[in-house]
Amino acid sequence: MSQPTRRQVLSSLAVGAAAMTLAPHVRGQDAQKKLGFAIVGLGRFGAGQLLRSLPECKLCKPVALVSGHPDKAKQLADKYGIDSANIYNYENFDNIKNNGEVDVVYVVLPNSMHAEYTIRAANAGKHVMCEKPMAINVEECQQMIDACKKNNRKLAIGYRLHYEPNNLKAIEIARGGQYGKLRQVVADHGFNISPHEWRTDKKLSGGGPLMDVGIYCLQAARYLSGEEPTHVTAQTWTPKDDPRFKNTDASMAFTLKFPGGTLATCQCSYASHGISEYHFMTEQAYGRLDNGFAYGGITFLLKDRGKPSMLDLPNINQFAAEMDAFADCVNNNKPSATPGEEGLADLKVMMKLYEAAESGKTVAM
Amino acid sequence: MSQPTRRQVLSSLAVGAAAMTLAPHVRGQDAQKKLGFAIVGLGRFGAGQLLRSLPECKLCKPVALVSGHPDKAKQLADKYGIDSANIYNYENFDNIKNNGEVDVVYVVLPNSMHAEYTIRAANAGKHVMCEKPMAINVEECQQMIDACKKNNRKLAIGYRLHYEPNNLKAIEIARGGQYGKLRQVVADHGFNISPHEWRTDKKLSGGGPLMDVGIYCLQAARYLSGEEPTHVTAQTWTPKDDPRFKNTDASMAFTLKFPGGTLATCQCSYASHGISEYHFMTEQAYGRLDNGFAYGGITFLLKDRGKPSMLDLPNINQFAAEMDAFADCVNNNKPSATPGEEGLADLKVMMKLYEAAESGKTVAM
Repeated sequence: MSQPTRRQVLSSLAVGAAAMTLAPHVRGQDAQKKLGFAIVGLGRFGAGQLLRSLPECKLCKPVALVSGHPDKAKQLADKYGIDSANIYNYENFDNIKNNGEVDVVYVVLPNSMHAEYTIRAANAGKHVMCEKPMAINVEECQQMIDACKKNNRKLAIGYRLHYEPNNLKAIEIARGGQYGKLRQVVADHGFNISPHEWRTDKKLSGGGPLMDVGIYCLQAARYLSGEEPTHVTAQTWTPKDDPRFKNTDASMAFTLKFPGGTLATCQCSYASHGISEYHFMTEQAYGRLDNGFAYGGITFLLKDRGKPSMLDLPNINQFAAEMDAFADCVNNNKPSATPGEEGLADLKVMMKLYEAAESGKTVAM
Repeated sequence: MSQPTRRQVLSSLAVGAAAMTLAPHVRGQDAQKKLGFAIVGLGRFGAGQLLRSLPECKLCKPVALVSGHPDKAKQLADKYGIDSANIYNYENFDNIKNNGEVDVVYVVLPNSMHAEYTIRAANAGKHVMCEKPMAINVEECQQMIDACKKNNRKLAIGYRLHYEPNNLKAIEIARGGQYGKLRQVVADHGFNISPHEWRTDKKLSGGGPLMDVGIYCLQAARYLSGEEPTHVTAQTWTPKDDPRFKNTDASMAFTLKFPGGTLATCQCSYASHGISEYHFMTEQAYGRLDNGFAYGGITFLLKDRGKPSMLDLPNINQFAAEMDAFADCVNNNKPSATPGEEGLADLKVMMKLYEAAESGKTVAM
């Protein structure tokens, strides 16, 4: 598998954007093979979102589960018609290489385990989808890319919004030029986190809200501009008296500067009322996506040279869309719109954001 | 006149906030003297907003004009029933000290002239209102405060949103505690500036969009938190090929960190589709003011622990409200909610923001 360049990825994304506004699923899917997915990690997201969505896919089906909780796995296997012989735990996971039903392994573990299980899955001869953040540092991302490349397996990161009609329309408007150049991105994502979550345990999460919700703000700035930032600033806040934040920050505010003249201001928090929205301005248009990063309920307000309208785009099953898109890539040996390189690019910026926050300096990329 | 402390100013603002939700104008105004206002500078703002609004005031009336264009001044004097003997130019302006009809001088000149005309007005024995930014550096702000103090005259900066019901309600929610502590402020203000404006001539403006529209974002963060930032970051963008931006930047993105745990991300631009909005999150509430910095059309979306509602607060004449509030201060020797110290506080931060942008460092206040 040849690794796509950033330009190729953007190009495939732009093509995807045009196609997605016609229909949320991939073309020619009736003639394609339905791929077997193994879900690794059966928490809220793996079970509640991915497993729930697989029956809605055109090109994917659930065939295996990997979990440390055999009872839970058995219950879910029964619910989704999965052969209980296809339940693995973390010790015997590598035996999945002998399971011809499994084409794709989807890794939905705590961030610090993404690299290990992606690499083990690739070494077992499986294509891999991995949740974001791809890993907890740049080196791990590169190892994951290398492992998939060595095994000639495809790798995609679970950036579901690259397959979501409202976000794709925003990209089209921001990059298309018909409203002039992109000038500003303003993105905000946060919520009040519960106590004792692995996401606030730095060993498992790799960092604070940036790794989990702030990455969406960074993504928005990157996919709207279609560029990589050149300079970043960041400030964090860590309360002294809140037991939720023993080894991560609670909030981060950051700015990104892009070579084409776009500035982005982003904020993320684990300690505020819920928010999931962004807006952007080109020279001649304003777009705002309320619930822009959410699983559904996204609305799109566009002001075209001051004139407002609500765009009426569908809210689709984003998980089904991203998994079907990956299956299409595997079946037809096409590059993913969200390959490992996309995850690596985010981690590069995120590490610089932590450096900026810690050093008190504007950091050049 | 004793200068109010920051705490007193905030306290008067908070009291004002409660009162303003009952009625937009000051109390007991029927019994008060109607003060004579001289408008210095008859541009779009001085003529189009302030002069137009004075007839709507309960405690103020237009009595004099100061302009370098005698024909324009005569025309406006006739329109607003001002004695043409009360038209001054910039040379004979100091003669205004002999004019007993003039109680208040309102300075609406380019930023770099604010200090000179405020000081001359105070030395002429007049109370002074001055548009924001108060001046183009901290030293000038202090000189203006000192001149008014020396002459025992009151000084207020034209921060109209401190007298605006939606913004006052936002302050009440952000600081009141009933929704928990304030965590985030996200503010954005910008538009596409016309060529050849004094606002992009640094000698007159003192800087780029921060001085003109970004100051609203800074204000929002300061009046919502009720605190002064401790650390700031900033990045600017200056296009090489746009003749509008010969000696100022076109856009700035900045972050502010406050001692109580609030982070603010702000953006301002002279090169984007128009925007004037902010939102904020406490622990338990989300508030968004669309058109939040505008002269009218402000809407307020509140989410109370997730439950959304539109607050139905009036859009008042903000200019009439701020001038009546100042007249009330003069008549009753009360401190202004927006004294010179408020303008000085903004300039202190703005100078640090330019320092942060230029040095590439997070700057401590």
